Amino acid sequence: MKPYLKEHPWSIIEDSFDKNYHQISESIFSIGNGHMGQRANFEETYSGESLQGSYMAGVYYPDKTRVGWWKNGYPEYFAKVLNATNWIGLSFKIDGEELDLNKADVKSFYRELNMKEGYLTRKFTAELSAGKVVEVEATRFVSIVNKEIGAIEYKLTPVNFSATVQVCSYLDGDIKNEDANYDEKFWDPVHVSAEDERTSVTVKTKKLDFYYCAMQETHIYQGDERQTGSVLNNETEKYSDVTFELELNENTPMTVYKYAANVTNRDHDISELEKAAALSLDQAVQKGFTQLKTEQSQQWEKKWLDSDIVIEGDVSAQQGIRFNIFQLNQTYTGEDERLNIGPKGFTGEKYGGSTYWDTEAYCLPFYLATSEQRIPRNLLIYRYNHLEKAKENAAKLGFSKGALYPMVTMNGEESHNEWEITFEEIHRNGAIAYAIYNYVNYTGDKSYLGEYGIEVLTEISRFWEDRVHYVEHKGYVMIGVTGPNEYENNVHNNWYTNRIAAWTLEYTLNVLDYLKDSDPDLYKKWVAKLAIKEEETSKWADIIHRMYYPYDEQRGVFLQQDLFLDKELMPVAELDDRHLPINQNWSWDRILRSCFIKQADVLQGLYFLNNEFDMDTKKRNFDFYEPMTVHESSLSPCVHAILACELGYKEKAYEMYLRTARLDLDNYNNDTEDGCHITSMAGTWMSVVEGFGGMKIKNDQLILNPFIPGNWTSYSFKIVFRHARLRVQIDQKHIDVTNESDVAVDAVIHGEQFRIEGKSSVSLDH
Amino acid sequence: MKPYLKEHPWSIIEDSFDKNYHQISESIFSIGNGHMGQRANFEETYSGESLQGSYMAGVYYPDKTRVGWWKNGYPEYFAKVLNATNWIGLSFKIDGEELDLNKADVKSFYRELNMKEGYLTRKFTAELSAGKVVEVEATRFVSIVNKEIGAIEYKLTPVNFSATVQVCSYLDGDIKNEDANYDEKFWDPVHVSAEDERTSVTVKTKKLDFYYCAMQETHIYQGDERQTGSVLNNETEKYSDVTFELELNENTPMTVYKYAANVTNRDHDISELEKAAALSLDQAVQKGFTQLKTEQSQQWEKKWLDSDIVIEGDVSAQQGIRFNIFQLNQTYTGEDERLNIGPKGFTGEKYGGSTYWDTEAYCLPFYLATSEQRIPRNLLIYRYNHLEKAKENAAKLGFSKGALYPMVTMNGEESHNEWEITFEEIHRNGAIAYAIYNYVNYTGDKSYLGEYGIEVLTEISRFWEDRVHYVEHKGYVMIGVTGPNEYENNVHNNWYTNRIAAWTLEYTLNVLDYLKDSDPDLYKKWVAKLAIKEEETSKWADIIHRMYYPYDEQRGVFLQQDLFLDKELMPVAELDDRHLPINQNWSWDRILRSCFIKQADVLQGLYFLNNEFDMDTKKRNFDFYEPMTVHESSLSPCVHAILACELGYKEKAYEMYLRTARLDLDNYNNDTEDGCHITSMAGTWMSVVEGFGGMKIKNDQLILNPFIPGNWTSYSFKIVFRHARLRVQIDQKHIDVTNESDVAVDAVIHGEQFRIEGKSSVSLDH
Repeated sequence: MKPYLKEHPWSIIEDSFDKNYHQISESIFSIGNGHMGQRANFEETYSGESLQGSYMAGVYYPDKTRVGWWKNGYPEYFAKVLNATNWIGLSFKIDGEELDLNKADVKSFYRELNMKEGYLTRKFTAELSAGKVVEVEATRFVSIVNKEIGAIEYKLTPVNFSATVQVCSYLDGDIKNEDANYDEKFWDPVHVSAEDERTSVTVKTKKLDFYYCAMQETHIYQGDERQTGSVLNNETEKYSDVTFELELNENTPMTVYKYAANVTNRDHDISELEKAAALSLDQAVQKGFTQLKTEQSQQWEKKWLDSDIVIEGDVSAQQGIRFNIFQLNQTYTGEDERLNIGPKGFTGEKYGGSTYWDTEAYCLPFYLATSEQRIPRNLLIYRYNHLEKAKENAAKLGFSKGALYPMVTMNGEESHNEWEITFEEIHRNGAIAYAIYNYVNYTGDKSYLGEYGIEVLTEISRFWEDRVHYVEHKGYVMIGVTGPNEYENNVHNNWYTNRIAAWTLEYTLNVLDYLKDSDPDLYKKWVAKLAIKEEETSKWADIIHRMYYPYDEQRGVFLQQDLFLDKELMPVAELDDRHLPINQNWSWDRILRSCFIKQADVLQGLYFLNNEFDMDTKKRNFDFYEPMTVHESSLSPCVHAILACELGYKEKAYEMYLRTARLDLDNYNNDTEDGCHITSMAGTWMSVVEGFGGMKIKNDQLILNPFIPGNWTSYSFKIVFRHARLRVQIDQKHIDVTNESDVAVDAVIHGEQFRIEGKSSVSLDH
Repeated sequence: MKPYLKEHPWSIIEDSFDKNYHQISESIFSIGNGHMGQRANFEETYSGESLQGSYMAGVYYPDKTRVGWWKNGYPEYFAKVLNATNWIGLSFKIDGEELDLNKADVKSFYRELNMKEGYLTRKFTAELSAGKVVEVEATRFVSIVNKEIGAIEYKLTPVNFSATVQVCSYLDGDIKNEDANYDEKFWDPVHVSAEDERTSVTVKTKKLDFYYCAMQETHIYQGDERQTGSVLNNETEKYSDVTFELELNENTPMTVYKYAANVTNRDHDISELEKAAALSLDQAVQKGFTQLKTEQSQQWEKKWLDSDIVIEGDVSAQQGIRFNIFQLNQTYTGEDERLNIGPKGFTGEKYGGSTYWDTEAYCLPFYLATSEQRIPRNLLIYRYNHLEKAKENAAKLGFSKGALYPMVTMNGEESHNEWEITFEEIHRNGAIAYAIYNYVNYTGDKSYLGEYGIEVLTEISRFWEDRVHYVEHKGYVMIGVTGPNEYENNVHNNWYTNRIAAWTLEYTLNVLDYLKDSDPDLYKKWVAKLAIKEEETSKWADIIHRMYYPYDEQRGVFLQQDLFLDKELMPVAELDDRHLPINQNWSWDRILRSCFIKQADVLQGLYFLNNEFDMDTKKRNFDFYEPMTVHESSLSPCVHAILACELGYKEKAYEMYLRTARLDLDNYNNDTEDGCHITSMAGTWMSVVEGFGGMKIKNDQLILNPFIPGNWTSYSFKIVFRHARLRVQIDQKHIDVTNESDVAVDAVIHGEQFRIEGKSSVSLDH
């Protein structure tokens, strides 16, 4: 594919208009602030193919489950992110003709997502009928300072004519989810108002009573002069607008400023909703567009200070990695423990916008290393708050105790309805336990264990205890599971799942010991509250001791599952290209019967529990599994990149890095129009920092083993570690680690121990 | 459950009206004639809960597939039996008040399905408003002599009043399938007509262009006098009626005769459809109700002559077995090779009315033993005609050759969309091959092999060849399958599937040898036409030789699948009753992980390939698997009953027999309102004839090893074997076999050889 987007270190740029690429660009140029997000739909009317999408974090709908064949245990509902009131809407009638890029002759077009400062801008020249040429320059952002505020500046110039223009600025709440199981609308009307320049729409969800009020104020300027003339208002059930009529003179621009407040009853009382919106809107209007934009830019500067990665000598890679970091920061800010990270963030509706194990397995490391401690901590608290639901879920499926976290969730309840995943892909429970370890290991914040962690760990351990059983000829087995490799279903003894289960039991026992030693009262409190019995912990010890792990003696590799060797083993490389990707070219059963692996499975275990395995073991397993891996999950290459780095497979590492770095920018999987792959973006970050940078934390110590791909001049990344901020810079000769904070840090770099004092650097050669 | 239906040797009887039981009775009292069927809906208006159902054999609709999550290889459509024009409709307005048993006070109610003569009758007394009492006696049938004709006699008496009555006789083609994936109607209007007593409705399906014309003629009599007075006609797009207005005198009956012709373009040209309906209707009207009913009765007598089973001393068992035989004969008559046997016959819509492996595995033996040879032969031809589609199906799933018959089909294309069944339950292919063997073995008609059989066998063998692969440590394996036990999915080396696959290869090679010997020219023709190569047949021989069969040395049992012994083994008897049936009480994954077996799996193989195994092997396997079998498929108990009989487990055999014999009559599975379990009814017949009667055919010889359950006085069954008709009668002391035909038959009864001459008997003691 010819690169459609222009390379630039700080911006995503499109310099022509291609209707066929429109929905992909709508995804890629999305803006968000953790509270809400907006696809890059045009403000003005666009009659071509488009997925109009405005999403509010945490506002969802329990859409009735759709299945072919019902299986006992399926949830009744699939919680879906809601496409909500369109607050960006403007329409322009120029001498009665609608400005619509699907109909006009687009003479020039330029769109830029300015990632450094956090805004979207667009310029175009379009020729309407009778040769009328208009020029437009539009800028918008959703504020990361005033979370409820979106602001638009829209400047229109009639280049070669004078005309009467009707500008309609509207809020449209009559929105349908593209991803609706039964083609239903999810919003009911509540209240609309429209009085001169200010209008509002309040809607509520048909179930669960989420209320959402959008309120807008629109100002129009000609030159410096605010126009307050002829104004018309319209309202229907879920819609309100204001229409201005103006006379525009040739080559004299008009500028529309549109401010919208988007508030929900997640943050305000229902009775106060309009008041809250009005207040928020007043503040925004008072600041005005310029100040809002300046504050936006300043706040983004701070974000980049903690999380930027600089790559010199490869602008395409630079753009890719910054795009990933930018989207992650747009999606989740960690300020609201009720929120999480949907696979598409605010860029689309697919996968329901819900929480997957992606968060714990792939996203947590990014937030651990680039944010204040409270931010990843909130990701943990999110699951803590869902513990009761996870216990209900286990009980519903017939377990006598413990908690099974859902595969997909918005509110703690299971949403997914595919038996081989919903019921069997239970390794997710292990990732949720591992995230606690990962957080404590990275931050050193052991207080979390006694405050929340132990409860989650205990209930997950209890689930594993109930889920395994003992058979004489093998030991403790776990049958009927799906591992991270979803191209095998309903297998026995998936090595990764067995291992992460036993690991959970080990860690839980360790944490109990730690609490007993460090805070006996707290320990007693938990033992009493959770009714932890000695026969329970000794059963866990027995399971740890006698867990069965399928293993191939001959090859010295862990077997992905008991019967993996019954398959015809062959490397992906031997497959004719026309078969790839297999998920588009093969029937499902052919995929299942094949040896081909969708994403890291055994290797996921080697990544998580890295310290437990020697290099030879890692190498044997990597050498065995990697050639059979098709990486048809966007979450696969990062783990392979990190292990390849560790094993010194530099070319393989770089190849794996390239597979995710520009996944959406290059529309590699041909599905970016559905939205961007937000969670896998964290994997790209991991590939650089944990892969190329070789960053690990072991025994409270920072470890770095950096290398640099041959075609890069240099790269650097930022990490926040134990209250210090480090900048790690690697070029082809040197490694420089600069401590930008005042807190000294110890680090082991390429096996050598360093103390890096505040505001100082260390440097070494490769 | 208190028995709701009355016991009677020849009839199903209901003597009170219970609205809660209404839909169950609508299923049970269904009538059919192979060409069409009709649920036991009331003719007059009924405003209560009801599944109005009129079905035409072979008329179906490709309803768009509904899934939760699409898997590559799923079919786009699910072919569904069509609920079609309601031709039984009558409505009665008595002084303006609708006769409706949901609203009237039902004083007495009696309904009888007369299985001996093949009609449904109903009598009731109902009190309308103001104490008006009406008596009704209604009889109807669908003719097995004039297949397109349904006839109704409806006698209404105003017991204690005189009144004006409006009788409306209608055809309603505006029908919706209850079982529609997207709540759509499947019929489009074509033409309606209504002229005095004769009206018609022609509709066509929205896809596939099935045309269906229903034409009715209605006569009304008061005493012997035909009423031809005031008549009104109505028609809308898909509806037509005639309304008569009469004055009824107290205690003076009126009788409505309604004749309906139901014709489709499966049997007539579209342009001739109305003409064909008129012709058929003319004939029926000319015969009149009484003659039609007499002919019906005579024809049913003939059917019973070939297929009756008499049980003395247990009227409940007698009623049960006759109900099963009656429903089988109502569903499939074998006269149209395009037709087959849907799991619900004409009694409901569930499972799409399509063809499953039920036909070959369970229904074929009934038709083999109770019909002329051409009738089971047509069941084979049905699959022969679908061979090209089965080859396309295999290709679509990525196989390089061979045919995979669909799991569910109407026209040869796969309809099912559940990966673990659609793609994996491939043992169905073996049953289709086995049916050819079974037919030839029973009838001795080897000509079928050279005419059709070899082609089907070759393509199925090719599929098996492509589906297995060789691994060093095991031999030829078959991974990723679901066996007959659908409570295990995606297993490796299901013993039954491996065995029936190897058996198919063996049988195909045998048939090729037979053709080579018996008709070298024909053999050469097939070898050329099918391009059978030596390397192919020698590969088959190699697979037969080195097929892997999981086996437990310690117990001496075939393993249902490779990892069956990883499960926690326990007998169903140890399960608390509240868990049963597990398919209603357990989550799907709990079921999958359990050892519990839905239906015969290893034992299905021991039943099919009975002669291959010694009694000890059968006993060990039966003793191992039967206690873990929950029989939650209605097709399970029959196989167990037959094997239990062979093993001398008489009590177990009788227990198994009871589980199917009255499945619908006693609504054992609590789902009879959806329709009756037609295909499992053949299993009940098998339990008696192959189980209790111990009937087998081996080397062209009839073998009988009868025993009689202790609580039966005697029982007898009829079998047609090689042009002879035998009546086998067993009482507690004797076995009598009477040859009712003129053709002599050899038989081995309890190991003793007999020649039974025409029109003679043999008798022996137990």
